[in-house]
Amino acid sequence: MKAVIYTGENKISVEDRPKPVILQPTDAIIRVLHTTICGTDLHILQGHIPSCTPGRILGHEGVGVIESLGADVTNFNVGQVVVISCITSCGNCHYCQRKMSSQCETGGWILGNEIDGTQAEYVRVPHAAFSLHLLPESIDQKVAVTLCDTVPTSYECGILNGDIKPGSTVAIIGTGPIGLMILQMARKLFSPSLTAVIGRSQSRIETAKSMGADQTFSVLGGEEAAITAARSATKGRGFDVVIEAVGTPESFSTAQALVGAGGTIASLGVFGESCELHLEKLWNRNICLRTRLVDATSTPDILKMVHDDAIDPRFLISHNFSFDDIYGAYEAFEAPSKHGTLKVAVTMSQKVVNGSR
Amino acid sequence: MKAVIYTGENKISVEDRPKPVILQPTDAIIRVLHTTICGTDLHILQGHIPSCTPGRILGHEGVGVIESLGADVTNFNVGQVVVISCITSCGNCHYCQRKMSSQCETGGWILGNEIDGTQAEYVRVPHAAFSLHLLPESIDQKVAVTLCDTVPTSYECGILNGDIKPGSTVAIIGTGPIGLMILQMARKLFSPSLTAVIGRSQSRIETAKSMGADQTFSVLGGEEAAITAARSATKGRGFDVVIEAVGTPESFSTAQALVGAGGTIASLGVFGESCELHLEKLWNRNICLRTRLVDATSTPDILKMVHDDAIDPRFLISHNFSFDDIYGAYEAFEAPSKHGTLKVAVTMSQKVVNGSR
Repeated sequence: MKAVIYTGENKISVEDRPKPVILQPTDAIIRVLHTTICGTDLHILQGHIPSCTPGRILGHEGVGVIESLGADVTNFNVGQVVVISCITSCGNCHYCQRKMSSQCETGGWILGNEIDGTQAEYVRVPHAAFSLHLLPESIDQKVAVTLCDTVPTSYECGILNGDIKPGSTVAIIGTGPIGLMILQMARKLFSPSLTAVIGRSQSRIETAKSMGADQTFSVLGGEEAAITAARSATKGRGFDVVIEAVGTPESFSTAQALVGAGGTIASLGVFGESCELHLEKLWNRNICLRTRLVDATSTPDILKMVHDDAIDPRFLISHNFSFDDIYGAYEAFEAPSKHGTLKVAVTMSQKVVNGSR
Repeated sequence: MKAVIYTGENKISVEDRPKPVILQPTDAIIRVLHTTICGTDLHILQGHIPSCTPGRILGHEGVGVIESLGADVTNFNVGQVVVISCITSCGNCHYCQRKMSSQCETGGWILGNEIDGTQAEYVRVPHAAFSLHLLPESIDQKVAVTLCDTVPTSYECGILNGDIKPGSTVAIIGTGPIGLMILQMARKLFSPSLTAVIGRSQSRIETAKSMGADQTFSVLGGEEAAITAARSATKGRGFDVVIEAVGTPESFSTAQALVGAGGTIASLGVFGESCELHLEKLWNRNICLRTRLVDATSTPDILKMVHDDAIDPRFLISHNFSFDDIYGAYEAFEAPSKHGTLKVAVTMSQKVVNGSR
């Protein structure tokens, strides 16, 4: 089969690999229909994820058809169309019992990282009983690649960790796919009294406006000016909820400056370095800060919300590629401001050619 | 009347001051029976609290008798014995409506800080209807000085912010009055599966043992060794709850090293500087960090718990002084390891003499 291989810093190639087989009775083999590329894949290419070594098939998101099942997987049937969760979970360990599948002792984020992933014609999914989700016919299969990681991350690490309540004032820092999905979910699910989006790209800020952001602020004129303007929208009190969906020391600092007394910061960044925490300002402000690697325990809820049209992730798919143009897909995803990219859907084609870049 | 005046860095003096009078219809004048000294008073003496300027009567904790009441205070009567909350709250502003009295727009921590305090024969308490609590006869009046600040801080900023649940593994960093009170409350109220105390003073560590700490660890042999030993008590997983009751960058770092995936850090420190937050290690560990200035909204609950013997703060009063030995009280409180001090009870005497040190 054809697969996208991480071959070293900033390098991928499409290569032939043996089709995976069932290794454990809890495995499933999935024939991939659609996959996508995640910001974390770019972190791998940049050499920031030492657990992912050259030779690995990339990808932790995919929608596909069950090709075969291990003997212990009794809650699915061959031929069903499923969403492959970015998080593999055994369902039984100390952490899975506590709904923290991300920390699963024999799973977590392993696909396209510690084991071969979904940017391939076939993928082996361990712990299939807990790591696959039946896709309802009502949901577009291509759009469903956003339900593997982007939408549960937005929901669990942003919405739930932010502890949004109806009437909350909500600041969202970042206008990437996750920032925008959080904006939609906050508005559709909670009726906040104020949504403010703090961004850098003017076109993304326009997108946020079109999605109903009450106020938008650009950091291009300086972080301080954006902070002052955003806080003034809350009568100077600061925000009840600040969702930090950029992940740099600067954006984390902005989050601290925006949060109000009693407020919550949901930190979604994938940090490679420590950050300064201004406890000299925050120690007496009754704030809460939460981090989380998506557990994808909300995927059943999300599937229902999409089916019911309570949320609509279709806008996330800005570009469509076939798998034989995977390099084009990577290029579009790596330069979002040039291409106007949010998420790319990559669809498996009959004819997949080798090559490298 | 006699009062303890902050007269400049590291200086206090007992001076004559006019007896306070009702200024607002929401005021009360309290004849102080007992007061105490707080770590925050020492911060003032060290010049760390710029809002408290020389000339101020110190003290934000006290038990006394209502001497007179403004016309709008209808929930108390003259002659009643009351606990004076360290937090003054109007009960009506944006923050008080949200149970964040610490952030009250016309109150908060103002006694012995922005207005004259309780280390005096009389004190004016603004917003008396929300800032006083009737003391049940069952509770010792002297012990009740711990209910003004120490016990609600332990409960709200430690126990509640730590989100302790029955069966939790709990690490408490610090063996001061608050650390030890948190240990007692955690054990008596929640039946944690493990309580570990991390301290510096061997005598305080012995106290923690005598109070039932399951494990104790000294940082005198190095923070790293203490962290390794403490984590091994949790099978290497780290703690569900870490209560950081020291308030230095080092102890805050220890807290981060002790917290387990899905765990909570309750930070009680009064920080004068920023701290390093190791998001490069914690971003994907589903942790929660909370800060809080005590709101003292739990005081009615605490009074009931003490009355019911569900908690017992008597151990906190290690030393008794009369007000005319206030310098001795400060000396004992400033050198706890020399004197074995936890909290001092300072009782008003008939004869109070002037003087300074």
